[in-house]
Order: sequence, then C-alpha cells, then structure tokens
Amino acid sequence: MTTAVEKKTMTGLILEADWEPREGYVVSEFEKKTGKAVTGNSVWRNPRLSVKEAKIPEIKPDEVLIKIKACGVCGSDVHFYQTDDDNYMLYPGLTKFPAIIGHEFSGVIEKLGPEVRDFRIGDMVTAEEMIWCGECIHCRNGFPNQCMNLEEIGFTIDGAAAEYIAIGAKYCWKLNAIMDKHHDEDKVFELGATIEPACVAYNGMFEIGGGFRPGAYVVIYGTGPIGLAACALAKLGGATKVIAFEISGLRRKLAKEMGADYVFDPIALGKEGKCTSDLVMKLTNGEGADFQVESAGVPTKTIAEMEKSLAVNGTIVQSAHVS
Amino acid sequence: MTTAVEKKTMTGLILEADWEPREGYVVSEFEKKTGKAVTGNSVWRNPRLSVKEAKIPEIKPDEVLIKIKACGVCGSDVHFYQTDDDNYMLYPGLTKFPAIIGHEFSGVIEKLGPEVRDFRIGDMVTAEEMIWCGECIHCRNGFPNQCMNLEEIGFTIDGAAAEYIAIGAKYCWKLNAIMDKHHDEDKVFELGATIEPACVAYNGMFEIGGGFRPGAYVVIYGTGPIGLAACALAKLGGATKVIAFEISGLRRKLAKEMGADYVFDPIALGKEGKCTSDLVMKLTNGEGADFQVESAGVPTKTIAEMEKSLAVNGTIVQSAHVS
Amino acid sequence: MTTAVEKKTMTGLILEADWEPREGYVVSEFEKKTGKAVTGNSVWRNPRLSVKEAKIPEIKPDEVLIKIKACGVCGSDVHFYQTDDDNYMLYPGLTKFPAIIGHEFSGVIEKLGPEVRDFRIGDMVTAEEMIWCGECIHCRNGFPNQCMNLEEIGFTIDGAAAEYIAIGAKYCWKLNAIMDKHHDEDKVFELGATIEPACVAYNGMFEIGGGFRPGAYVVIYGTGPIGLAACALAKLGGATKVIAFEISGLRRKLAKEMGADYVFDPIALGKEGKCTSDLVMKLTNGEGADFQVESAGVPTKTIAEMEKSLAVNGTIVQSAHVS
Amino acid sequence: MTTAVEKKTMTGLILEADWEPREGYVVSEFEKKTGKAVTGNSVWRNPRLSVKEAKIPEIKPDEVLIKIKACGVCGSDVHFYQTDDDNYMLYPGLTKFPAIIGHEFSGVIEKLGPEVRDFRIGDMVTAEEMIWCGECIHCRNGFPNQCMNLEEIGFTIDGAAAEYIAIGAKYCWKLNAIMDKHHDEDKVFELGATIEPACVAYNGMFEIGGGFRPGAYVVIYGTGPIGLAACALAKLGGATKVIAFEISGLRRKLAKEMGADYVFDPIALGKEGKCTSDLVMKLTNGEGADFQVESAGVPTKTIAEMEKSLAVNGTIVQSAHVS
Repeated sequence: MTTAVEKKTMTGLILEADWEPREGYVVSEFEKKTGKAVTGNSVWRNPRLSVKEAKIPEIKPDEVLIKIKACGVCGSDVHFYQTDDDNYMLYPGLTKFPAIIGHEFSGVIEKLGPEVRDFRIGDMVTAEEMIWCGECIHCRNGFPNQCMNLEEIGFTIDGAAAEYIAIGAKYCWKLNAIMDKHHDEDKVFELGATIEPACVAYNGMFEIGGGFRPGAYVVIYGTGPIGLAACALAKLGGATKVIAFEISGLRRKLAKEMGADYVFDPIALGKEGKCTSDLVMKLTNGEGADFQVESAGVPTKTIAEMEKSLAVNGTIVQSAHVS
Repeated sequence: MTTAVEKKTMTGLILEADWEPREGYVVSEFEKKTGKAVTGNSVWRNPRLSVKEAKIPEIKPDEVLIKIKACGVCGSDVHFYQTDDDNYMLYPGLTKFPAIIGHEFSGVIEKLGPEVRDFRIGDMVTAEEMIWCGECIHCRNGFPNQCMNLEEIGFTIDGAAAEYIAIGAKYCWKLNAIMDKHHDEDKVFELGATIEPACVAYNGMFEIGGGFRPGAYVVIYGTGPIGLAACALAKLGGATKVIAFEISGLRRKLAKEMGADYVFDPIALGKEGKCTSDLVMKLTNGEGADFQVESAGVPTKTIAEMEKSLAVNGTIVQSAHVS
Repeated sequence: MTTAVEKKTMTGLILEADWEPREGYVVSEFEKKTGKAVTGNSVWRNPRLSVKEAKIPEIKPDEVLIKIKACGVCGSDVHFYQTDDDNYMLYPGLTKFPAIIGHEFSGVIEKLGPEVRDFRIGDMVTAEEMIWCGECIHCRNGFPNQCMNLEEIGFTIDGAAAEYIAIGAKYCWKLNAIMDKHHDEDKVFELGATIEPACVAYNGMFEIGGGFRPGAYVVIYGTGPIGLAACALAKLGGATKVIAFEISGLRRKLAKEMGADYVFDPIALGKEGKCTSDLVMKLTNGEGADFQVESAGVPTKTIAEMEKSLAVNGTIVQSAHVS
Repeated sequence: MTTAVEKKTMTGLILEADWEPREGYVVSEFEKKTGKAVTGNSVWRNPRLSVKEAKIPEIKPDEVLIKIKACGVCGSDVHFYQTDDDNYMLYPGLTKFPAIIGHEFSGVIEKLGPEVRDFRIGDMVTAEEMIWCGECIHCRNGFPNQCMNLEEIGFTIDGAAAEYIAIGAKYCWKLNAIMDKHHDEDKVFELGATIEPACVAYNGMFEIGGGFRPGAYVVIYGTGPIGLAACALAKLGGATKVIAFEISGLRRKLAKEMGADYVFDPIALGKEGKCTSDLVMKLTNGEGADFQVESAGVPTKTIAEMEKSLAVNGTIVQSAHVS
C-alpha cells in the first residue's frame, strides 16, 4: 500500500474563479489584505471546477494528516459552481479561491504532528468545517463560530475533496463510538461524512435554540440535508409529532424515512388553497407547534407561517441559510 | 346502568388512624387549626384500612364528579399502612385522616358544575394529586407545588380508591390524545392512572432539572414507579445509554422493558467489590453521566456515587423521596 | 368619613363607543357571543369619555373592594379616545365598551369577600391589569398572560379611573415593602400606580427575555413609560452603559433621570446622517449591545438597527406594542 | 529606562518544597510523569519562600512578556506556606514546585511574540490564572476550567510575584475600559490585580449559577476576597438586600463598604442563641433568600443553614473552597 509518507502528490477537486468585484462593490481593507471575499457572489466570477494534481500538504506540529475516505457535496459546493446571468457564483459567503472544496468528510489519520496529544495513527475521524483561532474574544467567550480569524475548509482554505487533508488535531472528532455500534468501516465513514451537516441542525436546535421537551410538536420547513437531520433529531429528542414541509418528492420520501410523521408539499397545499400554518394548527389540535425549524432557506416565506402556528412559549430556530 | 345521579352512596377504601403526637413532638398552630399533620409519622398511630360505604360527594360549581375507572397503589399508600415498633405510620408527610386514599387514577366525568368550561360529561380524564389554591404567592409565581394552602387527594382529603371523586375541573387533564393512539378504553384508563407518578419523573427531569440533550448518558438509581418512568422518559428524550441500578429482580426486568439499556443490582455489585460509579465511568468511556436521577429514596447512599461519576456540566436530580 | 359601606354610588371616567364593524370586517363567533372586539379599531366608533355616576360594585366572595388613591393614564387610554378619519378609535386590541377605563392604579382595601385569605382591610395595594382565569391550559402551564378567558380591567371590564374597583384578591399585590422604604403614603400610592407599566418592562426584560449579566451594554429604543422603566431596570440590573433613543425632549430628560447614561434623539441623528446602530457600535467599542429593548412601538424601524448593532449572543426584546 | 530587552535576570518570590509523599499516599502515573501533585498537602513538605534571582523568561511565538505592576496575595498562597504538624503544606490542590507564586496580578506588555494579534506593547493587562489547552474535549465543549492539560500560574508554573511573566496572549485581558473610567494608572493596576478573585465570584454567581433577578434577596456566607466581590456584584446586579455573615471584624467592615446592607458575625449570633437562617428568614419577611453564596470555605456548616432559609426556586452556589 502506498501511503502519504511515500507519495508526494495527490489529486483534488479544485475550484478556481476570477476576482472581479461587481461594479459598485467596495472591496474592504480586510478583503484586500486577506484575499478573502466576505460576499462571495459579489466578487467571484467564472467559477471552474477541475480535478488536478496537488502537493500532499505538510502538517504543522499541532496538525494531523487525514487520508480522506468519504466526502459529501453540500449545497454550498453547488452554489460555488452555479452562476447568475453575469457569471458570478451564487454562493454569498466568505470565500477565497482557488481552493480544494469539500467540508463534510471522514477519514483515517495517517500522520501526527509532534504536539498532537489525543489522536493516534489509524484513528477514524471527521472534522469541523470552521477553523476557529481559539484566542479571539469570541472564541474565548465560547462562540467559536463567531471567530474573528475564521478560516473554513473548502471555502477559504483547502478542503476534503482530495486524497488528503492537513488539519489541526483540535478540529477532529473520533468516530470510535459509531464503529462500536455499526462494525462496518464503510458505513462508519459514510455516517462520519454526514456529521458536519447534522451538527448544523443539532447546534441550532439544542445548543443555541434550547431544545424542546419530550412530547413536543416539532415542525421542519425544508428537508434538505439540514432539515433531514432535523427530522431525525426531532424524533430522537422525543417529539410526539414531527411535521415536515418540502417541495421535492424525493426529499419528502427521505424525510419520512428519517423520522417525520407527516410530510407535505407546500406547493400542492397552495393549489388546494391551504397554507402550512393551518395544517400545523390542525395536527396539533389547535395548540400550535412547540418548536419550528427553518431549514428551507426561504425565511421570508416560512417565518410568517411559523408565527401563525406557534404554540404559547414556542420556539423558532433558523438552522441554515441554504438547504 | 346506575349512575351517580341516582345513587347516593358508594364504597371507598378508607384509612383511619389515631391522632397521638409522639412524646416531645410540638403540635403547631397550623396543625391544631387544620387537623393536618405536617409530619405524619410523628402524629398518626394505629392506621387501619377498610372498605366502607360513603356518601357520593356533592360537586361545587367549579368541580366535576368523576367515576373512577383505575387507581394505582403508591409507595405512600403502603407507608400509610406500614408502622414502626410504636405503631406509628411510616409515611412522613402532610396528612389528615380519616380519608379515602388513592391519588394515581383515571375515570370518566359524570357530572359537571355550572362554572366548568373545558370539560364535557363522558370525557376520559386523570387529575393532579396536588390541590393548589391558585392565589397564594407561590401559586401566582408559577410554583403550585409550593402552594401555601395545599391539599392532597388521598392524603389530606378524599382520594380515588372509591367509586367517585369530586375534584376541581382545573386539576383534570383529558386522556383524549391517548385514546387517539390506543383505541382501547381499558388500556387508556390503565395508562391514565400512571400519569401522576410518571409526571413526578417528568417534572423532576425536564421541568425543574432542565433535561438533557439527545445523545446524553443518563443514569437512574432505583426503578420503582418513578424510576421506571424515568427510564422510559430518558430513552424517549434521546439518551444514548440509559443505565439503571435496582435491588429488586422484578423491577430490574421491568426497567429493561421500559427502556434501560443496562440494569444492575447494586448489592450484587458490592459483593463483587464494585461500586456503581465505577460501572458508570466504564460504560460512559470515562466521561461520566450527563444526567442522573435519584429515585431510590436513599440519597445518603446514592448521591456520593453520582458525584464520583458525573460528567463535566452534568446534572443530578432527586425525583422522589420514596420509590 | 364616608366609606363604601355607606355610599351606594361613585363617579367614574367612562368610555362609550358605538359597535360599528368596518365594512369587510368579519365579526367572529367569539365577538358575537362575548361582545368583546378582538381588534378594537375595526369595530369601535365615535368614542366618548365622560365622568358619570355609577354603582359602587358589589364584591364576590373572593374579591376585595379597593378605594382608588392614584391612577395613571396609559398610551392605550389615549388611543381609546383618539380616532382616525372615519372616527374609529386607534386602539387595536381586545376591548368591550362601555367601561370605566384606567388600569395603572393603587389604593386601599376597604372591603373583603369572605374567601379572601391574604389581605386585610386597610392594606395598600396595586393590582394586575390582566384578569386571568387560572384554569385554562395556558394559565395552568404558567402563562396567565395567554389566558383563554382573559378580561382586562379598563379594557373589557370596569377599571380604576373611579372611586372604587372590585377585583379578585389574587390579582392584588401589597405595597408594604414600598411603605417600609418611603414612609409617605402619597409617595407610595404614586409609585404603586406605576408598578403595572414597570412590570411590562420587567417581565419582558427579565422574565421572558432572560435578562443580562452585570456589566452588559443595554440599549432602549423609546422612553415612554415602558422605556423609562426599562432604563431604570437596566441600570438597577448592573448595565455598564444604558443607551436610550427617544424623539421627545421631555422624555429624553426623564430617561437621564431614570438611569440612562446616554440619550439621543434619532431624528436629530438622522439629520446629521447618522444612524442609531453606528452610535451603539461606537459606544460599545465595536462589541455591540448585549441587550436591546424595543419600547418605541415602531419595530419596523428599530429592529433592523438593533440587529446591526447586536453583540454576539445578544438579546432583543420587544416590550410593548405602543409606548 | 532599563527594559527586559536589556536585562537578563529578575527577582521573584519562589516557593520550594520537598517531594515527600505521605505514608500510604499512592503517587499516580500522572504525578510521576508530570511532577505535579494532584493533592498538594499529601506530597509537599517543608515549604520555603525566598526572593531569588531568576532568568527573565523567553516568550514563545504566541506569548507576551508582561512587566508586573501589582500582585495580590491569595489564601492559596498563604496555604502554600502554612504547614500542619508533620510540616506538610496546607494547600490541597494541584501544584508543582519550585515555582514563582502569585496569580492575581496586572502589568504592562513589554514584548510580543510574532503570532500575537490582539495586543500591542504598552497595553495594560491582567491574565487568567488557568492555562487551559484549548484542544482537549472539555476546552472544546466550553469548559476551560475543566481542561485536561491544565497548568496554573503560581501553582504549577511560574507566577507573577516577580518582575516579569511570560504568558500566552490568549489568557490576557486588557484594562483599557478601567483606564477610561479611572484615569489613574496606579488605581487601574491595583484594580486589575483584583479581577482574578472577583471573577471567581462572578463566574460562580452569573455564569454557572445563573444569576438572580433585580429585586432578589442575596446572602453571602464569608467575606474574604471572593465573598467581598460577591457582595459588590450582588449589589451591582440589583439585589434588594445583601446580607453577609463573617467572623472577622475587619472583613465585616469591608463587606459593608463593598455593598452589603447587613453584616453579622455568626459567632456572636450563636452566643445569643440565634442561627443565621433565622436572621435571613426575618430580613426577607419570611420569603427566604433567592440567591445564596458559600464563600466561607465551610460548606459543612453553612449549606444546611442556607437550605433552611432558601426561597422557593432559590439558588445556592459554592464559589470557593477557601476564602
């Protein structure tokens, strides 16, 4: 078997684009200095994806080298490549290209920096997407996702759609507990690559949103990857009814498999003159939903419906900008 | 069918005892005035249980008359009847006798007071055990279980081990949602009578104790009725492992059926030189338990073990004095 | 001294209006049955205020009769009387007329119903404005302000702009602790009449909004009575800087007296080309405000500014619809 | 002016002691490997304090060199030096000697490592006492005080009772806001050195303990440095009455100056046959205290009193082991 120790190069899925700020867009000092666009779709034009040969990254003393085993395709990845009429990429967030994309992944540790304490070669791991500094005021206050020196793998630095990634050990999480349960490496790596999107839902619902109590009525708008995770987590957390709304037939089917008790197509409902809030009120016996998740990416449409069908002391969380 | 409308009397299980304060026990003004003993086992002697004929109670304008369909036997009921060497009852709490006992029950509404708004004749219901006044400072602040004018059905006023009970409508809860699920009246009444003890666990775990997040390690000490409910609720709320300790073989078997993943006999463990905290640390991979419930009624023994095996940021709740 | 015991009638400030639903407004079954308009300004026309002779109310067994000592004028009271071009009242909420208005008051208990436990004749008291039933599902769940059988003194039933009011003892709160501090009856009654509006701020900020920690930056938009109370409460709760925005010069002056460290006129700011969020960012050294209160009654204008200047993990509460 | 750039050595207050584990004390693998004693008073004998010449520390790339301006003496420092009959030090916690002691300090940054982002030479700062790793599971979960790789300045590594300290920039906090308020360097450095002990109280009361609402009754047992800070914070946070208990006359006087409304000597009370809980019940008009702080270091004596005088829904926090 050839390992990174012997190999010097690897293949990776690289996104390139041209730095052409739209007319009228004021490039900030931060953007000039870092080469990162804060509003990607105002700056990056003519995105191009290609599989290229790249150097296998060197690891720093506190990093590990992970051999990638599975990598998901996020909606963000798709929006990097999709463009508007002027050929600007659709993705609106923090970005710096060229970069290897991919941030929902799992793999095996193949090399350890000398300062790494908690991992061993051979450990099965996934990793966080956000590379937080740990020293700015927000990190120190317990809000690493508000890090003032944030990098994001697959967005501003090289990601995981490649053979290898070098990443700080402190962003890695072991998959051992999943292996204990499933005893199948392929399964574990596949599941491992879904942890990042599932954690978007988990963090929004339970960490920031405060969760709900067993017996609650939970409603999910939009069952893309985040919403599907929300369905599963809602059921797992003891929701008495999980009600989901989704326009894609395939995703409606998946939502049922993931734990939704009821799944409706809001477009079909509209044609029958019904709105989603009416249905929620009916299915909750007039009480309204205790916990509602916006994971459709269209809050301007969904939030008003949620408010009309919110239980007394209910919660609305917005778990993702794009599904 | 003969209903309460026609009948004048009913049979009820009545507990009688003698008001004989122990030597040295100072009977308070409150006790003299109300006839209620604050510390039952210091006052009530020679408890006697008998099935007697009693008047079917009249309802007040805001009350309902419930025909009892099921009534559980609580540990408290047993402790009313059990005595110490001096023939004082074992139960240590607020009590006034004679009274029909029984407070875990379900039934059907047979009569409605004229001010009752939210119930209809024929409604299947259970009721709270605590008859809170709704107007004292604690009730108004949202702590009805700290009511300054508290009565307790089956403890200080007539309970449900009878054919009928008259009770304020505001203490009743409909069983409709259970009927929607089980479509079997007997099953619904049986389940309905377990709601009161299950709510002791629910209130301690989720309302006062703040609950836990899906994926937590949960440990239950003692699986009497409260602990069994705790096992089921822990699993329902998404605990990744529910670990229970119980000395009774029958209850250990029930704990498994109710949702515990692991159940141990602490006495058998002791004989092997093991303590419960070691086992918890091992089963949680050294992390400790995120949420622990004392429902064994022996906090002087269990709390220290819980503290030795508590996860960082973990919670201990004490859900009952007696299991 | 002539007391209510001897007198039969009293004077009261009565609001009358005509029930003339606007064209197109569908009067609901609830409105027909109760005579209460859910949306006052769609139903009540030609409001008229007059001081009239009225019967001194009889008290029910659980009520007290209060001799009014002070009564404030709320923005709502003003909106009852102000009208639009079609002569409909401006107030948009739950209302039933004719009624004696006034709901921010204090007084002395002059008569007690036989079931009243916690008050004595001569007690100085204020009272809640919301007459919650205590038995509906929302009341029982601890949300009396969501009561399904709500009455409101001075809105749907007779209020306090009169010589006497009869009100359930459970809605009354003693002013003793204030008397202990101020030793001046007039002062106590004056303060007592401000408790209701101050509690709107307190409830929004500390009960529902979760409060802030000592050292926080707190911003108040609008310093009408609610906002003025918010300024005082923010300072009392340990805010390191209290920043207020208010268009009225008089109210800006009061805001300073109540505890605001900085008070600005948003209109004057606008003329200088500045927006409120910029100022907040500057005064908080770029951190943003930890806690912001909308008590201006114009959330469509203020919330966006708050969001632009919100600290990481910050809170926005909306404490009133109208200031 | 001579700066660290030119100087090579400095003076420091060094604690030395002999590693002589008590008979029967099992030295753990961790202790052998690290040289740190987990239970200081079972291992360190014959403590000796001396002012010695030491090398001015080199800074790492992410560290700063601070010229010390003020350094407090903690109870822990005293317990390092005090011994029992067998000459073992009294301090019971994590320790490694020899070390320069001192962990409550302030100073000026004199040198910056090349990776330091957020500080400049000349910045006035204080620093955390706990040197958390930021990468272990507890640090990543937001509990740096549970760090698995913890070092403590003045306990396991060199502290601040010296001319200089080298410390990671991420443990430093600027004193600018205090300078803005006090405009007096000496005052700022003095206050800066009290931030560490004040934060012990702040963290216990507001971060972990959840705080209290304005108007609460707050009780503080023990007014050493932690308890004195608790008095000030209680008043600042809007407590309506702050009641303190303290055996030292000097500290009782300080407690009053720091914000306590009532201060009592529990020993004097005892001689009068009164207990602290009675006094608390009386001063809170029978309601009990909403928030109580154990900062006396004698929980076996104080907690029972707190429980007897705790308000419904009240909180007890234990803010320090030793005052």
